[in-house]
Amino acid sequence: MALIKKPVTGMKDVLPREMEIRNFVMGKVRETYSRFGFTEIETPHLEHIANLCSNQGGENEKLIFRILKRGEKLKLEEAKEVSDLSDEGLRYDLTLPLTRFYSNHMNDLPSPFKALQMGSVFRADRPQKGRFREFMQCDIDILGDATSLAEIELILATTTLLSSLSFKDFTVRISDRRILKAMALCSGFAEEDCDRVFIILDKMDKIGPDGVKKELLEAGYSEEQTDNYLSLFQGDSGDTDSVRALKERMGDGLPEEAADSLIRIMDSVNAAKSGDFKVRFDPTLVRGMSYYTGTIFEIEIAEFGSSIAGGGRYDGMVGRFTGRDVPACGFSIGFERIITILLDRDFQIPEEGEKIAFLIDKKLDPAKLPEIMKEAASLRAGGQTVLVTQMMKNKRFQKDGLEKSGYKEIRDFY
Amino acid sequence: MALIKKPVTGMKDVLPREMEIRNFVMGKVRETYSRFGFTEIETPHLEHIANLCSNQGGENEKLIFRILKRGEKLKLEEAKEVSDLSDEGLRYDLTLPLTRFYSNHMNDLPSPFKALQMGSVFRADRPQKGRFREFMQCDIDILGDATSLAEIELILATTTLLSSLSFKDFTVRISDRRILKAMALCSGFAEEDCDRVFIILDKMDKIGPDGVKKELLEAGYSEEQTDNYLSLFQGDSGDTDSVRALKERMGDGLPEEAADSLIRIMDSVNAAKSGDFKVRFDPTLVRGMSYYTGTIFEIEIAEFGSSIAGGGRYDGMVGRFTGRDVPACGFSIGFERIITILLDRDFQIPEEGEKIAFLIDKKLDPAKLPEIMKEAASLRAGGQTVLVTQMMKNKRFQKDGLEKSGYKEIRDFY
Repeated sequence: MALIKKPVTGMKDVLPREMEIRNFVMGKVRETYSRFGFTEIETPHLEHIANLCSNQGGENEKLIFRILKRGEKLKLEEAKEVSDLSDEGLRYDLTLPLTRFYSNHMNDLPSPFKALQMGSVFRADRPQKGRFREFMQCDIDILGDATSLAEIELILATTTLLSSLSFKDFTVRISDRRILKAMALCSGFAEEDCDRVFIILDKMDKIGPDGVKKELLEAGYSEEQTDNYLSLFQGDSGDTDSVRALKERMGDGLPEEAADSLIRIMDSVNAAKSGDFKVRFDPTLVRGMSYYTGTIFEIEIAEFGSSIAGGGRYDGMVGRFTGRDVPACGFSIGFERIITILLDRDFQIPEEGEKIAFLIDKKLDPAKLPEIMKEAASLRAGGQTVLVTQMMKNKRFQKDGLEKSGYKEIRDFY
Repeated sequence: MALIKKPVTGMKDVLPREMEIRNFVMGKVRETYSRFGFTEIETPHLEHIANLCSNQGGENEKLIFRILKRGEKLKLEEAKEVSDLSDEGLRYDLTLPLTRFYSNHMNDLPSPFKALQMGSVFRADRPQKGRFREFMQCDIDILGDATSLAEIELILATTTLLSSLSFKDFTVRISDRRILKAMALCSGFAEEDCDRVFIILDKMDKIGPDGVKKELLEAGYSEEQTDNYLSLFQGDSGDTDSVRALKERMGDGLPEEAADSLIRIMDSVNAAKSGDFKVRFDPTLVRGMSYYTGTIFEIEIAEFGSSIAGGGRYDGMVGRFTGRDVPACGFSIGFERIITILLDRDFQIPEEGEKIAFLIDKKLDPAKLPEIMKEAASLRAGGQTVLVTQMMKNKRFQKDGLEKSGYKEIRDFY
């Protein structure tokens, strides 16, 4: 039987040109984040099914690649459902593995712990253009810090990274889950309505306040609730003054701690920032994951019309492993999105050192080869790239290819 | 239900200290191999089961982690055996994915193609000390080059890498599958006995010629066959002269091309080598994988008593995808073995730049934070590592930890 040449459905091979850019970005990630004191860790690609299906992964839990049990543990005849057949699965994000990791190694880690993770995650999504079933995630997280310092560091590190990759004119949208909820409650919505209201609010960007009002009314909420709610979003300049204005409008309805923390974060980021970007309080920011408990943030680049990084505070995740909550906050860049943008821009990586190709004719006297290899070795020892390779029949074609790959000097050996 | 803190059976979490060393080695790998003109590629962690179970992976095929089919494709009631339940599996090596990759993208790749791959592979082995079910492999391969240039480049690149990681006094053992087989045939063994004979020969290191003789006789082979065979291994100095001596002893029985190619490889490696190592012709070298068709090689460090890299020529693999064979040759370093040795040696990574910690007291006036963050930003922009973190109650303990992690300057902010 002939073997299958294509990768498995929804996954892709990475060719040298893309890999070079991926490595360049990963290098920048390591360099930038380590300067902020983040240290890198890794967890297995496989996780316990019990952890993966613990109801914090939202929609992603439906997309788990499950691993078949092995050996005696696999009882095919007795199996009634999928859960009888599998005990492990491929991770669908890096946040769940991180909280497991932290719970397991807490005593051997500094507190607060600043973690960097880069690795593949897997989601058995319907394949579609630009969305893959295996893709890289790149997260930074701070565990054990309840103060706004965590948010400030995450935002500064991520914006510094994006600037170093020559992204410009982007916006950090920031809000707080506690504010999001308080605004709904104080407009007369019931606690149990919040999720439905937020799904509609999340469309503000696309359908505007009139559209949101229409959908809220259609969903059966009263004119009064809806008007109250929308009035809270008015006159929203996005700076710290608009947080203060909201505080005045909502009075006791707004948790003071959340508002103060937002102001602190924005002030510090604005003071220390170096890149070309804005920080904007945006009360319409929702973010999907149910595990967020406080600050939430997202980075948008107008040019690309979509979010390029996102994160927030999730103080309740570690406690699900240990019984004791640990404050936690993370920021994840859209690694694959960034690679696609750089590829589209035909991004050029700064070359280091000379690249020389030695083409060896097939008929070359073998006795001459040792001297040639010696010369290549001495050039390489000096930091140069030397490709020693067989000369092809179509030499013109081979040379064109080499020149495109940056080999400026080509030497022939007959 | 409480979640599970430990990683899945047989897999491990990587903590910052080990991760730093892994990153350092991966950096050296990229730097060294790219200087030899290798370009990096990546394939998905998942492969088609049909490819994985195609009888070239030997024992490893039994150790595949299978992925459960999803959605409508999973027909639990009708399933009679494991193969009905799974269509994909985790890769157990990087060689099979590489040959699939090459078959798929051949037209977009230079010829010859020099590939570097680093990535996790998975084997559902019985867990034991130092052997993990997920581990990193690091392979270089040259596809499309039938000449000994491929072997020479692979050996020079790998030995240069090991030297750059301060490994010394190692030996490259080299032989050829065609010689291995010719020696058995010309001693009177039948073609179908070869595999059994090689399994016994492979123990030469441990049991010596007398032990090998004893086992061959016990296996039912004649005194004459056995004596003929063992006489061929005598007077084995390991240099190119011993290849020539074998040529004389075996006459037409020895494929001349194989012997000449070995001499060419050894001469060029010896001429161009810079590290502290020997190249040694070793006719007792067997290497397990059934896909090897020509040269085989292994690197041994006496100090560690085990092989630290291995590879060889496998000219028949690509043809299984395309119907047309492509010459191929690869060398794989034992990445995890190397990491273990460096950790045991307490290997120190050369530090770059200063590391400063800013400790922020909880009671610090929030209005002071923006200035502090600004100062950190300017130090970071100058290439320094600045950890801005919350001051812990046990400040002495925190400072000790920071000093151990290389933070020489610690500033307190109240």
